Amino acid sequence: MRVIFIGDVMGEIGQTMLTTYLPKLKSKYRPQLTIVNGENIASGKGITRPLYKLILQAGADVVTMGNHTFDKQEIFEFIDEAKKLVRPANYPAATTPGQGYTLVKINQVVVGVINLQGRVFINPIDDPFAKADELVKQLQDKCDLIFVDFHAETTSEKLAMAWYLDGRVAAVIGTHTHVQTNDARILPKGTAYLTDAGMTGPYNEILGMNKDRVIEKFRTNLPVRFETPKSGPGQLNGCYFELDEKTGRARKLQPFSINPDRPFLE
Amino acid sequence: MRVIFIGDVMGEIGQTMLTTYLPKLKSKYRPQLTIVNGENIASGKGITRPLYKLILQAGADVVTMGNHTFDKQEIFEFIDEAKKLVRPANYPAATTPGQGYTLVKINQVVVGVINLQGRVFINPIDDPFAKADELVKQLQDKCDLIFVDFHAETTSEKLAMAWYLDGRVAAVIGTHTHVQTNDARILPKGTAYLTDAGMTGPYNEILGMNKDRVIEKFRTNLPVRFETPKSGPGQLNGCYFELDEKTGRARKLQPFSINPDRPFLE
Amino acid sequence: MRVIFIGDVMGEIGQTMLTTYLPKLKSKYRPQLTIVNGENIASGKGITRPLYKLILQAGADVVTMGNHTFDKQEIFEFIDEAKKLVRPANYPAATTPGQGYTLVKINQVVVGVINLQGRVFINPIDDPFAKADELVKQLQDKCDLIFVDFHAETTSEKLAMAWYLDGRVAAVIGTHTHVQTNDARILPKGTAYLTDAGMTGPYNEILGMNKDRVIEKFRTNLPVRFETPKSGPGQLNGCYFELDEKTGRARKLQPFSINPDRPFLE
Amino acid sequence: MRVIFIGDVMGEIGQTMLTTYLPKLKSKYRPQLTIVNGENIASGKGITRPLYKLILQAGADVVTMGNHTFDKQEIFEFIDEAKKLVRPANYPAATTPGQGYTLVKINQVVVGVINLQGRVFINPIDDPFAKADELVKQLQDKCDLIFVDFHAETTSEKLAMAWYLDGRVAAVIGTHTHVQTNDARILPKGTAYLTDAGMTGPYNEILGMNKDRVIEKFRTNLPVRFETPKSGPGQLNGCYFELDEKTGRARKLQPFSINPDRPFLE
Ligand SMILES: [Fe+2]
Ligand SMILES: [Fe+2]
Ligand SMILES: [Fe+2]
Ligand SMILES: [Fe+2]
Ligand SMILES: [Fe+2]
Ligand SMILES: [Fe+2]
Ligand SMILES: [Fe+2]
Ligand SMILES: [Fe+2]
Repeated sequence: MRVIFIGDVMGEIGQTMLTTYLPKLKSKYRPQLTIVNGENIASGKGITRPLYKLILQAGADVVTMGNHTFDKQEIFEFIDEAKKLVRPANYPAATTPGQGYTLVKINQVVVGVINLQGRVFINPIDDPFAKADELVKQLQDKCDLIFVDFHAETTSEKLAMAWYLDGRVAAVIGTHTHVQTNDARILPKGTAYLTDAGMTGPYNEILGMNKDRVIEKFRTNLPVRFETPKSGPGQLNGCYFELDEKTGRARKLQPFSINPDRPFLE
Repeated sequence: MRVIFIGDVMGEIGQTMLTTYLPKLKSKYRPQLTIVNGENIASGKGITRPLYKLILQAGADVVTMGNHTFDKQEIFEFIDEAKKLVRPANYPAATTPGQGYTLVKINQVVVGVINLQGRVFINPIDDPFAKADELVKQLQDKCDLIFVDFHAETTSEKLAMAWYLDGRVAAVIGTHTHVQTNDARILPKGTAYLTDAGMTGPYNEILGMNKDRVIEKFRTNLPVRFETPKSGPGQLNGCYFELDEKTGRARKLQPFSINPDRPFLE
Repeated sequence: MRVIFIGDVMGEIGQTMLTTYLPKLKSKYRPQLTIVNGENIASGKGITRPLYKLILQAGADVVTMGNHTFDKQEIFEFIDEAKKLVRPANYPAATTPGQGYTLVKINQVVVGVINLQGRVFINPIDDPFAKADELVKQLQDKCDLIFVDFHAETTSEKLAMAWYLDGRVAAVIGTHTHVQTNDARILPKGTAYLTDAGMTGPYNEILGMNKDRVIEKFRTNLPVRFETPKSGPGQLNGCYFELDEKTGRARKLQPFSINPDRPFLE
Repeated sequence: MRVIFIGDVMGEIGQTMLTTYLPKLKSKYRPQLTIVNGENIASGKGITRPLYKLILQAGADVVTMGNHTFDKQEIFEFIDEAKKLVRPANYPAATTPGQGYTLVKINQVVVGVINLQGRVFINPIDDPFAKADELVKQLQDKCDLIFVDFHAETTSEKLAMAWYLDGRVAAVIGTHTHVQTNDARILPKGTAYLTDAGMTGPYNEILGMNKDRVIEKFRTNLPVRFETPKSGPGQLNGCYFELDEKTGRARKLQPFSINPDRPFLE
């Protein structure tokens, strides 16, 4: 199965990059499944119902999230109906709306898409390793392939998750740092891994936020209001997978970046 | 000027990778200046006098460090004589031995090599942005080129430093996360930038430390002793620069990775 | 029921303070139940079998712990037999030896002693609020009184736990910061609360560790080996409760401090 | 010299407690100098010009601040004229308006009031120990007495500062955790010390913020808007000092708490 994943779409520039390039990426890679991380699509923080629909209309089958899932109050009104949206599965079960995984059927192949969030330098939520165990056990008989978007800060927690799940899921792809890493590989037991897919949004800013403000914050330690610019050059980052539905493992992982320095090649 | 930078060399596997591939990299890229980050060379933590010499004998001109600089007690005995070793410049001046930058003369070109350390999720030392300002001002008339190894955890702090110094130094290269990023670029005013160069050491472990131990730590939160293995497949990560000594800016930045999945190509 | 709690006993000075003053405190307050936090008794980090016995022989009925529970390797050999020792209940169930609560029967009164650990600025373990809910539900029919030692860093997390459990347990007493707070009170629904009981150990040091080393660490950010001194003036901190076994609530909470500035008064 | 210090005044309840009880405290202790921490007076976050005046009119001579100093945008308009307001001295000099200390003359006695902020688990600003050294050196010939409000999270950083300055300043009083500690003492070389003075505001909430919201935040990890209630029972916390202007040291330190459980005693 051919799969495309696109990293954290941020604000209006991110929306434009997504709607412009996802069709071209589809022509190029002919994915049967497209997954997009949408945690920053609404002005850099959270998601709204129209923007959830925009991602689906742009061609995504599943939208994954992260620590910004609930930043827009509006999400509480539609998350329980949003069947294609997954938020980190290891938020506390008793108090968190929405779902931590979803199943997608493509022809006769069932893919489970799981979203998990790390705990190092982010919120102290439930154990992502224990939750991964639980979900893999629960899904392995229902799915031909399992895909994990692990939204985490440190390289160590992401690498630990990937090695922990190696051979049990088809892919562990990291998000959250907004910078794509250059370590794509297939681990020995068949799991495709990339520490971070990178983000989709402004190219000349800092993680998608206005760079002058971010620099000011670091230099002054005074309160600064971060904003994502509405126009300017954009970038899109993600990766292409070939997963083997017979073995549940990965055959190929190939990251891509589109930006003014790396124009899209058909 | 052609420059090679090699990311955090870790333990014995890192030493072997360095001594094996640095000569080959030199044949390939013919660098006039070679810089190696050595903060993890002694069993993953710190550096000793023989290992400092080993790096120089392997072909390095300058050794940069990071938050592990002082992990081996022995460093206090030789750091003040180690003219080619730079530790983060923003450790407190009054109490920190060693130097935060060094000047290297190659033919008639003088290059200043600065080491700085971030403060987000690491030690609260002096302001790296203010120290960068101070050192750039101090060095700009003495140097044709300035190279910065910024040892920091988060992508935001590294990007902020790069944009802050854009046009004032030839290169800002990040270290510390041990995973190479895929965002090498020349910023608009001419500074070469890469969020992280990656590390040089074990390939099938987590940041160079035994992966079973790291996973155990995440799963149990019990005390675990991390160790870097002494044998097994290795990786080497770094990048190649072409810097323009007339303008003080960069012309080219090209990361490289050597590992079992990406064999060295002459 | 009259209860005494004594805060984190640290190293040899802490042992001496405990064995010297616990008998005098018993004469003064005539407690029917004595609980001692022992997480720092072995040189400031962890506990050994002989020191566990020393605490019991000094007159304690239950020993509570905290983030240092497993610092001494030896604990893995005896924790499962140590029926009077409780470690934080919200460490992961699958991988943590020992128990998170114990029941003590005094005459016909059954007291449940629970140990929980916070997650803000400490290890990211399981949710202490959810675990508290679970244990209170489990114990309420088996116990006449429930006592909670909540080992946590921030005042907010401790206050939140106390208000959350108000009326459901007899007492929530904080530990970990090693400084006694001056906010002892009975909350509106009957739970006795003190943000921190303070520690039992050296009086002229920093949290029980050699003060010169701690100051050096803050000033230099260099590696420093912390040690707890073996002799010198000591302090003991704790509190006295009167709990009502008929209602499961508290009637009285009175902190005490013994040190050279505040000598013990019979 | 008799001095009163009052901990972090929070919101409207804090204002009421201050204006109600400061006159009574003045009658009781007859202080010659009154210092009030005002970092939370404006709805829990920051200060405005009218509220700065309110504190002075209530009877304060100096207003100290902390990490919330700049939360209300309005402060940038008046801080440079606010001669009686001190913000943490170790914010970066180049970019921070306002002053880090002030001198007050009472009869013929000159008192220097310094505000410093810790770096552990708060903002990474300049080194408070180095800044303390610098200011003490600068002020010691100009002042008879030096008073330090050290706004910091951890007990270790506060104790380290107190022992570091022992004998060089008359008092080191901690703020920020909003809970008064029970460890008031005069250190061996004469510096009065209290780890935290506590806060002045709502009594039945968490650190002054609505307790239901804080508990919800801990339990859900969802975005929650913290608010300080405008009415309800209040508390006031602070301490009374007797400082010796001839020696620059302290003779007495006596904390006080006023709340429904501990009514004010004339
Ligand atoms: Fe994101
Ligand atoms: Fe994120
Ligand atoms: Fe490193
Ligand atoms: Fe490092
Ligand atoms: Fe402790
Ligand atoms: Fe502790
Ligand atoms: Fe405050
Ligand atoms: Fe504060």
